[in-house]
Amino acid sequence: MKKIEHIGIAVKSLETSNPLFEKLFGAAPYKEEEVASEGVKTSFFMNGPNKIELLEATNEESPIAKFIAKKGEGIHHIAFDVEDIIVEMERLKGEGFIILNDIPKKGADNKLVAFLHPKTTNGVLIELCQEIR
Amino acid sequence: MKKIEHIGIAVKSLETSNPLFEKLFGAAPYKEEEVASEGVKTSFFMNGPNKIELLEATNEESPIAKFIAKKGEGIHHIAFDVEDIIVEMERLKGEGFIILNDIPKKGADNKLVAFLHPKTTNGVLIELCQEIR
Repeated sequence: MKKIEHIGIAVKSLETSNPLFEKLFGAAPYKEEEVASEGVKTSFFMNGPNKIELLEATNEESPIAKFIAKKGEGIHHIAFDVEDIIVEMERLKGEGFIILNDIPKKGADNKLVAFLHPKTTNGVLIELCQEIR
Repeated sequence: MKKIEHIGIAVKSLETSNPLFEKLFGAAPYKEEEVASEGVKTSFFMNGPNKIELLEATNEESPIAKFIAKKGEGIHHIAFDVEDIIVEMERLKGEGFIILNDIPKKGADNKLVAFLHPKTTNGVLIELCQEIR
């Protein structure tokens, strides 16, 4: 756990929300990317050592569509930057956390990712992410 | 907006949640502090350049008690570190954001803080915070 890599925010429309966050940060998103396997389109804003990821669902089965239907737009997850995702997954399993995927999967922004079950983390969806080198 | 200063997480009990987040980060909170004016007890964990703030309500009128009653435990707000909170509040007002307090107020961890109305920020409660120098 080196730092907060990014915060993921569920939005209905990148087209509407990109200009809003551009005003907030005073800079446009540095990248947009679709992750078809997760049913999302994303945009990324840089903020010093951290990033903000906006997520828009591309279909009704997307976890983001379900999140917005249930809770409305808002903060969806926190992602922490880790040096070695396999080592960190093992350490956290040993501490009693439940990992949602047994092996890391390919996420947006050139990352390997794994999620912790919110049931074991006070209702917070936590993502581990490691830069693919 | 220099970086994510901290993420605030609403919890029912610091006594229960401190050990959980200690396992996550591999280190104990570096500080606990009560903010009587907000009706909260807080604990802070360091994570590289960022912090995690756990918030427990100290009375039923506390915004944290109301948040948990409505949404359950989970991420409550994102705080961004700013160089000059007055300048940043003026800039954001000019961009159409609604600031919840007209003048900065004293927050936890030696900070001046101001909040943006979630209605103007895609449902995300955003805190500006400036170190008191």
